[in-house]
Amino acid sequence: MSVSNRLIYLPLGGAGEIGMNTYVYGYGPEDRERLIVVDLGVTFADMGTTPGIDLIMADVSWLEERADRIEAIFITHAHEDHIGALGHLWPRLKKRVYARRFTAAIGRLKFDELGLPTDVIQTVASRPETIEAGPFRVQFVPVAHSIPESAALIIDTPAGRIVHSGDFKLDPTPIVGEGWSEVLFREIAAETPVKALMCDSTNVFSPHAGRSEASLADPIHGLIAGAGGLVVATTFASNVARLKTLAEAGRAAGRSVCLLGRAMQRMVKVAEETGVLTDFPSTIPVEQAVEVSRQNLMLIVTGSQGERRAATAQLSRGKYLGMELKEGDLFLFSSKTIPGNERDVLRIMNAFSEMGVDVMDDAGGRYHVSGHANRPDLELMHEIIKPQMLIPMHGEHRHLREHVKLGATRGIVGEIATNGMMIDLTGDRPEVAEYVDVGRVYLDGSVLIGAMDGVVRDRIRLALNGHAMVSVILDENDDPLGDAWVELMGLPEIGRSEKPLADLMETELTEVLGSAPAKVMRDDDKLEETVRRIIRQVAVEEIGKKPEVTVVVSRLAEE
Amino acid sequence: MSVSNRLIYLPLGGAGEIGMNTYVYGYGPEDRERLIVVDLGVTFADMGTTPGIDLIMADVSWLEERADRIEAIFITHAHEDHIGALGHLWPRLKKRVYARRFTAAIGRLKFDELGLPTDVIQTVASRPETIEAGPFRVQFVPVAHSIPESAALIIDTPAGRIVHSGDFKLDPTPIVGEGWSEVLFREIAAETPVKALMCDSTNVFSPHAGRSEASLADPIHGLIAGAGGLVVATTFASNVARLKTLAEAGRAAGRSVCLLGRAMQRMVKVAEETGVLTDFPSTIPVEQAVEVSRQNLMLIVTGSQGERRAATAQLSRGKYLGMELKEGDLFLFSSKTIPGNERDVLRIMNAFSEMGVDVMDDAGGRYHVSGHANRPDLELMHEIIKPQMLIPMHGEHRHLREHVKLGATRGIVGEIATNGMMIDLTGDRPEVAEYVDVGRVYLDGSVLIGAMDGVVRDRIRLALNGHAMVSVILDENDDPLGDAWVELMGLPEIGRSEKPLADLMETELTEVLGSAPAKVMRDDDKLEETVRRIIRQVAVEEIGKKPEVTVVVSRLAEE
Repeated sequence: MSVSNRLIYLPLGGAGEIGMNTYVYGYGPEDRERLIVVDLGVTFADMGTTPGIDLIMADVSWLEERADRIEAIFITHAHEDHIGALGHLWPRLKKRVYARRFTAAIGRLKFDELGLPTDVIQTVASRPETIEAGPFRVQFVPVAHSIPESAALIIDTPAGRIVHSGDFKLDPTPIVGEGWSEVLFREIAAETPVKALMCDSTNVFSPHAGRSEASLADPIHGLIAGAGGLVVATTFASNVARLKTLAEAGRAAGRSVCLLGRAMQRMVKVAEETGVLTDFPSTIPVEQAVEVSRQNLMLIVTGSQGERRAATAQLSRGKYLGMELKEGDLFLFSSKTIPGNERDVLRIMNAFSEMGVDVMDDAGGRYHVSGHANRPDLELMHEIIKPQMLIPMHGEHRHLREHVKLGATRGIVGEIATNGMMIDLTGDRPEVAEYVDVGRVYLDGSVLIGAMDGVVRDRIRLALNGHAMVSVILDENDDPLGDAWVELMGLPEIGRSEKPLADLMETELTEVLGSAPAKVMRDDDKLEETVRRIIRQVAVEEIGKKPEVTVVVSRLAEE
Repeated sequence: MSVSNRLIYLPLGGAGEIGMNTYVYGYGPEDRERLIVVDLGVTFADMGTTPGIDLIMADVSWLEERADRIEAIFITHAHEDHIGALGHLWPRLKKRVYARRFTAAIGRLKFDELGLPTDVIQTVASRPETIEAGPFRVQFVPVAHSIPESAALIIDTPAGRIVHSGDFKLDPTPIVGEGWSEVLFREIAAETPVKALMCDSTNVFSPHAGRSEASLADPIHGLIAGAGGLVVATTFASNVARLKTLAEAGRAAGRSVCLLGRAMQRMVKVAEETGVLTDFPSTIPVEQAVEVSRQNLMLIVTGSQGERRAATAQLSRGKYLGMELKEGDLFLFSSKTIPGNERDVLRIMNAFSEMGVDVMDDAGGRYHVSGHANRPDLELMHEIIKPQMLIPMHGEHRHLREHVKLGATRGIVGEIATNGMMIDLTGDRPEVAEYVDVGRVYLDGSVLIGAMDGVVRDRIRLALNGHAMVSVILDENDDPLGDAWVELMGLPEIGRSEKPLADLMETELTEVLGSAPAKVMRDDDKLEETVRRIIRQVAVEEIGKKPEVTVVVSRLAEE
């Protein structure tokens, strides 16, 4: 091993936020390291900060410029915040993708929809199968999480072994898939000392040890057994284990079970096709469900986060696919509300309340458990892996900071590495090697745009201030041809003086432009500035707001 | 008492939501009842559903049309969700306003700012002082809450006694102001049987008895005594008791205390001027605070909900009024995050984390208590008041529903009365008398607009879809004069074919309009429809989105 080789870690997304996980490892001479990418995830847009945006992902320009140095892409599991950007960003990287069979199957479905080649996604068995990717040797180690076949990665390099935890919890009985195995992880740490543990930080503030997925069966069975009317339950579509627990509880209570929502049906289908799920209770299609009496029926539906078009929201608005909730029914949110979605979820809960439906949620923790390791679980992981260094990931800054502190209590040297911080892991402690320009890219309709392009900023301005459009036509002498025309959108029609606002603006424009100096009238910029000033002045007087203004000056003389 | 008289209750806001409390009581012959109004509050806008809106309040058209029947307005306390609309809606009602001295003083400040007559707000002492308002006799009864001088109202009518709880908690030691007195409420119930209890429902889902404001002193003192660097704490500006506890803890730890934020300074000033607050620790102005070493200083600041312009958010962005947080400082959120504000608050916590500041919040319940009665407290209130009927208020639908159920366990007949449901209380049980059209009114800049006016709907559309403006000029023969002009806002500049989107639209418009049939070209509606269709078609092809389109057709022949 040449002394000039180094081992680097570079988060491009997911470090300093929960979402859009995108991590890079490199090994080799400085600036010529061979690279691997771990996960290409998305984060979700919201009306408040990213109106109209479909998906948010990491800006991978740094990777794109170094595409010839990338050996491979590894996806730890099929949650959208780990795989959601793969199809959108893959055309920029065009490297082989490795994942376990369930994750790979989900990835291929996405590639198929986008018209991308599905054969670049290769299925990998779990350890001891090993992928050689340049200087890296990578193994997938099964961990429990809230989706089938989540994996930690063992990344062996000439500079030492890295354990990339992926999203995990210490659950020996996860209902679907392999449970977490302490023995396995002790073996991994004993086999080769671990240089660095890159570790999930989501629940570092949760003080009690996490609970097993299996612990939910009894409360959920009890709840559904005691229900009189229709039972509807929602959870994350990809939480196949939960779907199974819910469906089994429905069947045990003598109910027919119907899955509503495309995402959920797809997850169950893929889980069955890949052999991950073998004994899911029988379900009936919705066409058949509408014929079943409500006390004998259970619906399991999408939309636990209040998504407008998902089944939960549809049912809260009334009849959906022939189904309608009413007095005496039960609706179970077997899920937690992700911060930012509270208003949407509460709106739905209240709509159900208006229908007389009893709504249960995760208050009290009886009907939902998290998929992430809690604080004591993280401590156990530190103890088992005994890494030389701890680099927290998958967390907001406060999570990363707390996780470094937690590691320090055991004497593990840590580093808060946020997006764009390239960390040199070669020596005895993590060193910041470089700050890489990072950012976000938005999927807007069918186009990828930069977060700083100004498009979203303009949309927010339009939403806050409204829009005034002015058309001014000038003749060959730069004199106004007719009156200026003002169209308003997103603004009150009538203000203080109780006359139409657009009329007042047009009158004022006509007056001012009729007597404006020639140097203003012949200069587009000056003219636009004058028009903008007048529009805003009238608006402030009349409605106390300054709208966005767009001016179109048409000069007929120029024809 | 004539048989034809009736006693009615009509919530116009606050029933089916938490916010904009606006309640009406009436007594008299049907449709000629004399009316009183209790509270005129606001709710806050958010970017997601009400972009650009300053405040949201109940539509009081029903009251305005019956202004001659209104006897008076009563304000229970000075929280914005109870008093915030008073100044904006008073000009429509113009009736005398009654409140306790602290609330009245806050009301007069608001009236003064809006140029309204302050002398219409009359200060009322607490029970036994009684306001005669037509058939109503009203007393203010002190209750503990998270603001000084909150009051329940005893409303005596010829048809019986009503207890309107206001916002309350069962706190005998609220630090500032009178504590809740069980004796007093037992006396009220013993004096005259209570026909109806209109009751705060906010915390009906909180299973444990509420804790006293006084219980926070020890944990807060301990936390601050142990801090090494600068200490900053935030809470709701109007929680004068909390401000006192915080300031005392700071002083006890040998720190100078500085209040940052206009709202907070104003609340303390008014509380002192009205005699509600007598022994607030001495504070120093910010000009002096910048000279104090950080281990000897404590700031108490506004902005616990992450409001952009408040001190907390300002400090999270860097230097503010000469103050700057750094490694080793402590920031305490002595507050809870109101649903919907999570993202803003978390963003700030993470910014502090990046500065190396230790952030404490109400997790674990050590540094914050709620101002509302919890479930067991509500049960005790029911037991004490023994009302014939229970009408829950101050809650979302799910709260009202649960509260009715809770009352039913004690055999009290209840009714879920949401905004617009007029309830006849005259008989032995509440009866829905009528459904009144209700809605919301928005303060937008300086103008009040209806929630259904379409202004906000248009803003949301602009934000989601972006805006394309098209100017088309036609000559006297309805032929296009020059090319169409397209301006885009909030849209990507470049789409699939990598050419400027506006150019592509202009080219397509020129082509289509150049060969459009005369019947299209001479009809504004048909022409606009054609233009809109072309714009959207190009946009869908290029960027996969359908923008909002505004078309300005100028016909020079019409001059």
